[in-house]
Amino acid sequence: MDTAPRSGCAINAAVEVLGDPWAMLVLRDIMFGNRRHFRELVAGSEEGIATNILASRLKQLVAAGLLTRDDAGRGQRAAYSLTEAGIQVLPVMVALGNWGLAHRQGERRLRVRAELLRDGGPELVAAMIDELRELHLGVPRPDPGAPRASDQLRAAYEAALLDNASR
Amino acid sequence: MDTAPRSGCAINAAVEVLGDPWAMLVLRDIMFGNRRHFRELVAGSEEGIATNILASRLKQLVAAGLLTRDDAGRGQRAAYSLTEAGIQVLPVMVALGNWGLAHRQGERRLRVRAELLRDGGPELVAAMIDELRELHLGVPRPDPGAPRASDQLRAAYEAALLDNASR
Repeated sequence: MDTAPRSGCAINAAVEVLGDPWAMLVLRDIMFGNRRHFRELVAGSEEGIATNILASRLKQLVAAGLLTRDDAGRGQRAAYSLTEAGIQVLPVMVALGNWGLAHRQGERRLRVRAELLRDGGPELVAAMIDELRELHLGVPRPDPGAPRASDQLRAAYEAALLDNASR
Repeated sequence: MDTAPRSGCAINAAVEVLGDPWAMLVLRDIMFGNRRHFRELVAGSEEGIATNILASRLKQLVAAGLLTRDDAGRGQRAAYSLTEAGIQVLPVMVALGNWGLAHRQGERRLRVRAELLRDGGPELVAAMIDELRELHLGVPRPDPGAPRASDQLRAAYEAALLDNASR
């Protein structure tokens, strides 16, 4: 943010950056979908994000210190990575997903992952944070032999889809 | 919301309502400050909310089912109450406050409460939810003899201010 915060409140400081639906959806797709390039983020968007909105939100998230942009050079596509502050948005995502699950209708295919994150509790969130640090910051996971949180999520997601299909 | 959600994702459903800085600040002031009337919400706003923005956000939060508006009759000021869905935004507020504490500068006076909520953990959040249900929905707390979460927060807040002043 270029401007001073409107107050010294921690919640205000957070919503000045995170209080934007498109910014959160971009962070969600980078976090859970590991989409690191502009084109992937456009093509995979469930909400049909417009390219001008995506461009402005990526710029704002870089300026706010939640993403870094790695410009790979002429003709190469720039890659976006989460910073530690960006990775730490995960608990906010989980809380938002829990709220959406409880208080809004959703689509089974898209609800499964939010349900897994809710039911996995703080351990799963911690494991995902370790994995995001490895992917985005190059920090090795504390226990490299442990199953990846994303594998757990993917396996349970696929099982839920099979279970759903066989009903 | 009048329109269909942009996708069936639980996080998207949440940010379509909660992904707005002013909506979150209004909910924060109702939740933590127990400000129930338009004038109180304007007068107490740390961020200097404009009356037209406050009016639009109150309307949207009522339409989205997070607040109810009790029109007390001619000449009486309308009172706003949180619904259960509105009360359940508390864990999102706590997650946002934790993020703001960790990744943004703040003001000591305004940080104390976020620190208390962070350090109080799930038990304090649960106690606050019980208290909000009592205040806003008229549901008696499960243990009416237990100290109120808001008293705990206030006491610790005052102690922190005294401690701060005596340094």
